[in-house]
Order: sequence, then C-alpha cells, then structure tokens
Amino acid sequence: MPELRKDPITRRWVIIATERAARPTDFPAGEAAPNHSASCPFCEGREERTPPEIAAVRRPGTAPNSPGWEVRVVPNKYPALGIEGSAQGRSDGLFETIGGFGAHEVIIETPHHGLQPATMTPGQFAPALWMYRERYRDLDRDERFKYLLLFRNHGRPAGASLSHPHSQCIALPIVPKRATEELEGAQAYFAREGRCVYCDILNQESAARLRVVWENDEFAAFTPFAAWSPFECWVVPKRHEASFGNLGDPQIPALADAMHQTLGRLYRCLNDPPYNYIIHTAPYDARVGHFYHWHIEILPRLSQVAGFEWGSGFYINTVPPEDAARYLREVGVPAPAASPAPTRLPRPGA
Amino acid sequence: MPELRKDPITRRWVIIATERAARPTDFPAGEAAPNHSASCPFCEGREERTPPEIAAVRRPGTAPNSPGWEVRVVPNKYPALGIEGSAQGRSDGLFETIGGFGAHEVIIETPHHGLQPATMTPGQFAPALWMYRERYRDLDRDERFKYLLLFRNHGRPAGASLSHPHSQCIALPIVPKRATEELEGAQAYFAREGRCVYCDILNQESAARLRVVWENDEFAAFTPFAAWSPFECWVVPKRHEASFGNLGDPQIPALADAMHQTLGRLYRCLNDPPYNYIIHTAPYDARVGHFYHWHIEILPRLSQVAGFEWGSGFYINTVPPEDAARYLREVGVPAPAASPAPTRLPRPGA
Repeated sequence: MPELRKDPITRRWVIIATERAARPTDFPAGEAAPNHSASCPFCEGREERTPPEIAAVRRPGTAPNSPGWEVRVVPNKYPALGIEGSAQGRSDGLFETIGGFGAHEVIIETPHHGLQPATMTPGQFAPALWMYRERYRDLDRDERFKYLLLFRNHGRPAGASLSHPHSQCIALPIVPKRATEELEGAQAYFAREGRCVYCDILNQESAARLRVVWENDEFAAFTPFAAWSPFECWVVPKRHEASFGNLGDPQIPALADAMHQTLGRLYRCLNDPPYNYIIHTAPYDARVGHFYHWHIEILPRLSQVAGFEWGSGFYINTVPPEDAARYLREVGVPAPAASPAPTRLPRPGA
Repeated sequence: MPELRKDPITRRWVIIATERAARPTDFPAGEAAPNHSASCPFCEGREERTPPEIAAVRRPGTAPNSPGWEVRVVPNKYPALGIEGSAQGRSDGLFETIGGFGAHEVIIETPHHGLQPATMTPGQFAPALWMYRERYRDLDRDERFKYLLLFRNHGRPAGASLSHPHSQCIALPIVPKRATEELEGAQAYFAREGRCVYCDILNQESAARLRVVWENDEFAAFTPFAAWSPFECWVVPKRHEASFGNLGDPQIPALADAMHQTLGRLYRCLNDPPYNYIIHTAPYDARVGHFYHWHIEILPRLSQVAGFEWGSGFYINTVPPEDAARYLREVGVPAPAASPAPTRLPRPGA
C-alpha cells in the first residue's frame, strides 16, 4: 500500500508509492548538451552578446567584458522583474498589485560550454559557489530587497533555455511563499521543542543512515523523508547557520565536494537527468538565526505535474527516498573525467 | 515593468509580465489525438480491459461491463492510493506516516475516442458532469474520506497517458494543502468582511468586465486577476454554494454550456492546448457553507515550472489575464462540428 508522509517542516503531505516503486532505469536519460555551440552567448569570446557584466572572477589584467574569466555575472536579458521602478503598491477593490521591482542576474559558472557541475572537478565548481555568496552579500546592500532566490535549471525539461552552465538569482521585494512556509514551520517547531528542526533532522538521519547519500565534516547530503520528487536530495550544512550569506571561505571547498558528489551520483545513476536546485536561505534582515537553517534542495525533474498535483498541492513520488539513497550510495562517483586543463587563476575560497 | 499581483483568497503572489506579453500564437499547438485507437482500453467494446465498472449511464437493458454506455466509471488500474487498508498513522522520531488509503477512479466521459469536452456538444458532455456529482455524493458515504479531488488531464504535457476522454477522482483521507489554503483564506476574509470572497470577486468582475470570458444565468467564466498560468480560467457558480455535491440537476445543462464555451474558446484560441481542470469544492463534513464557494479552475499547460517556481512557490505568467480574456471573448465558439450521432439515452440532468 502507498504511504502518505508528512514533511516535518512544512507539514505538507507526499504520497510515496512503496509498492510499484520505479528504478533508475525507468526514467528517460537527459539529452546531452553539445560540447560547444557556435551561437552560445555565454561562451568565452562572446562577451559582447550579454549585457555588461556585474562581477567576474578574472585573470589579473583582463578587462571586464573580455575573455579571461572563470565565472561571470551578467543581468538577465529577459528579466522576470525590473530593476527600475519600485515595489510601490496600489489596489483596486479586492485586488492588490505591487510593481515588479527586483534584480535578475545570470551566473555563468565556467567558460567551458560542455561542462556542468556534475562533470566539473570540485575545484572547478568552487568559484561559482563563491560567486553565489558574493551576489548574496552584494544584493543585501539594497534594502528594498527582502529575499534572494538562487537557483539552477539544468536541461530543457527543467526550464533551461541555454545549455551553457549557468545559474540565476532573483532578488525579490517580498519573501516568497515557499520560504515563508519553511520559516513558519521551523519557528513553530522551535517554539515547541526549543531546537532547530533541521538540526534535529540531521541528527536523526545521521543515526538512521537510511537516507544518507554522502557526507563530509561540513555537509551532509541525504534524500528527505517526505521527498516531493524521485531522487530529490538535500545538501545541508552540519553547523547551524540560517543565512547562506554567512558561508565562510574555508567551507566552500567542502560544499563544492558535497555538490560534486551529489550531482555526480545523480548524473551517473540517472544518465544526466534534468534538475533544478535551489538555495533555501534566510530572508535579508530577518531575525530567524535561532530556528532557520540554510540548505540546498536538488529536484531531478523525472515526473510530470498533472491535475492531481495542481489541485491538491500534494505530490506523488514513485521512488521511496530510502531506495533512492541506496541507489545513489551504490553508484559512486568516478574520478572527474579528463576535462579542460585547470586554469591557473587565483581561486577565491578554494 | 512587470507587476506582482496578490491572489485575494490565498494571498499568493504571481508575477504578471505586462510588457513582453505573449500572444496566443506564441505557444505550441497541442498534439491531435487519433480518432480511434486499436488498443484503447476505454473504447466501447473493450470493457473487459478495465477493472469492473463502479457506475455507468447505460442504455436500458444493457449489462454492466458491456457496450451500450454513455459514461462509465472504473477503478484506476494504477491507483495513487489503495482502497484496502486504512489511514492509520505511525511515527518514527520526527517523521509521520499514514497509510495511503483512498479511492482512485476514472470517469470515461464518452464512448467516442476522438471527442473531448471542447468538441462535444453541451448535451454530450452533461452526463459526465452529472456523473462527477454522483461520484461526489456516493464517495461521501464513506466517512473515512475527507475530500474528493475531481480533475481532468488533457494532453500529454498535462499528464494524460491515455487520449480517450476521461477524468479522474481521488478520495483522500486528509484535506489537501491547496484546499486548506483556500479555506483558510476564505474564512479569514469572511471574518473580516462578513461576506464570501468568491461572491465579492464575482461582483467586482461582473462590474468591471475586464476579465469576463462568458456567462449565463447560473455560471460566469473569467480569467482570475492573479492567474498562475497563461489563459487560466475559472468557472464559478453565481449562486453561493460551498459544495459541488449540491449541484442541482437543473444547473447541469448551464454548467455544460459554460464548460463548452470556456474549453471551446481555449481550443480555438490556442489550437487544442494541453490543460488540467480541477473542481475546487468543500471538504466532506466541513462547516464551511457560509464562506467557501465551489468552482472549477482550468489551467492550460503552456509554460514550464522551473527553479524559480519550485523555489519560491510563485509563478510567472506571461499573458496578462485581461489580454487572455479579450482573446477568448473575441475567438468565439463555432457550432459543434458534425460529431457522432447523438445517442438516444435517458440523459441524466440534461
């Protein structure tokens, strides 16, 4: 019989199909991205094809908007929200509107078109993580922003329209619904138990080991008990910390290792699946340090959202998280394949 | 500049792209379903290919599980929840589980493989609506069920794995999250204003006429102010009523007209788009009659859910609802095409 499992933080139910569980080979493989693309605006040498860069990790002596970079941040050419204007509100009877004010940036993670976090070495990916944190801190200075959503879409079914490795961040004038749900759930748990719910989950997972995929001293990767989607994985810092912005330089290599291990295992196990990952962090200027705990949620896009999910807000997961974790533990990660020669740049935080 | 709009019921924000708004021709057409299928288990004459029928509208004198039906209800062969067992709970530390108890049925809307609600006459579709209500009432008798989710997936991108016209219902042992959000929002509004929020929305929409698509004496179809998805439409009864189970026989032809008009216009305007529709109704045995108001939400599946939507719980809608309503008003609905000769059955509720 299927099971209904309750997320201990948001109290959202998920249906876990325990009997007719799918295996990794039941899902279609991802489509391989071409190794280079003659028209890709994110490739090195085509810097004029993007809006002017906001930040970059560059070889000393190279100029902005020219080759010589390792990570590059540019405004999104088709932003979801506009940087001009304001979040001023107005209302018309029942209906409230605020201006769609915000920042929408693209973080180009490497000049190499054919790589992706799963196939980069941890050392190659670390500068992108460092840049995530720098954007978090920099956008924090604009007090009109209440929240920074940092996310990555990989593969067309996950919403990536360009295959060159990149992430995005959107600075929002309001705290989004999903963050509010987590914050409320974590706050209620703290009020009841006097402890961080994420720390308690980490402790229970570490003791049971049923759903742990991989861990090092700083981070644990596991499949959550009430996973929404098959092979969903969370990467959680072991030290209690609410804000991603407080990620320390010495922790960046450990996070790069944890992401490499988790994404590399998903890549091997599911043959380069499409996925989204999202950094769940504290809102700017929020006093949530005692009860919230930042983390990264990785959602492989292996199943369809249909009428049941839209109508109920519930999800049906055809792979029990315990099975997913076992597959991911067993698959291992190969030594990174021969990849473009490591560039000899100063590597921030690595 | 884009706009952030707040749903007046659930207070969820939506980003409406007012500047770079998409037109109907910007979306890909749906894939036409074949007119008949040699292997379709829902076609007339293949009744033995489904589990035994639960209910049907049949020509007098025909036997269950044989030809001669107009609408047929069968258990889902691959149910999301199991009818055996119970919703008994257990917990393991932080983690709560209940048995995946429930009913999952398929409502085959017509014996004709090549039809769909948009291309049926209202008279052909009315028996399916009557059957929806009968299933709602029948499943209400099992007091272990707390909620009935009635929904339709049309087209493969909307999750339909079989093209023969059918809907589904899932009886749940808990009230789903989305329903709870609406109930809480509507209850809070009632506590504040002393009126039903849906009735107030209907009044404001009727006065403004910006977003009205079509209406008759009993039902209004409009695009909601804070629509999640491009061309989202709601069909709402004008008389205040919380439960779909109280839909009266005389209202069924009016609902069939409203659904025909709305789905027919989406079909014409967007070239047979994939869609989900969901009946939003009161939970079983809930005292929500004064503040809740049942309705049908139709969600064309024209855009992708990506990292931003998963991470935030917000949606980006590239078609302002006012534009969508104008396109849908202008497109009109043709007289139903020559379709299979109307059967001469007793038509419940029509």
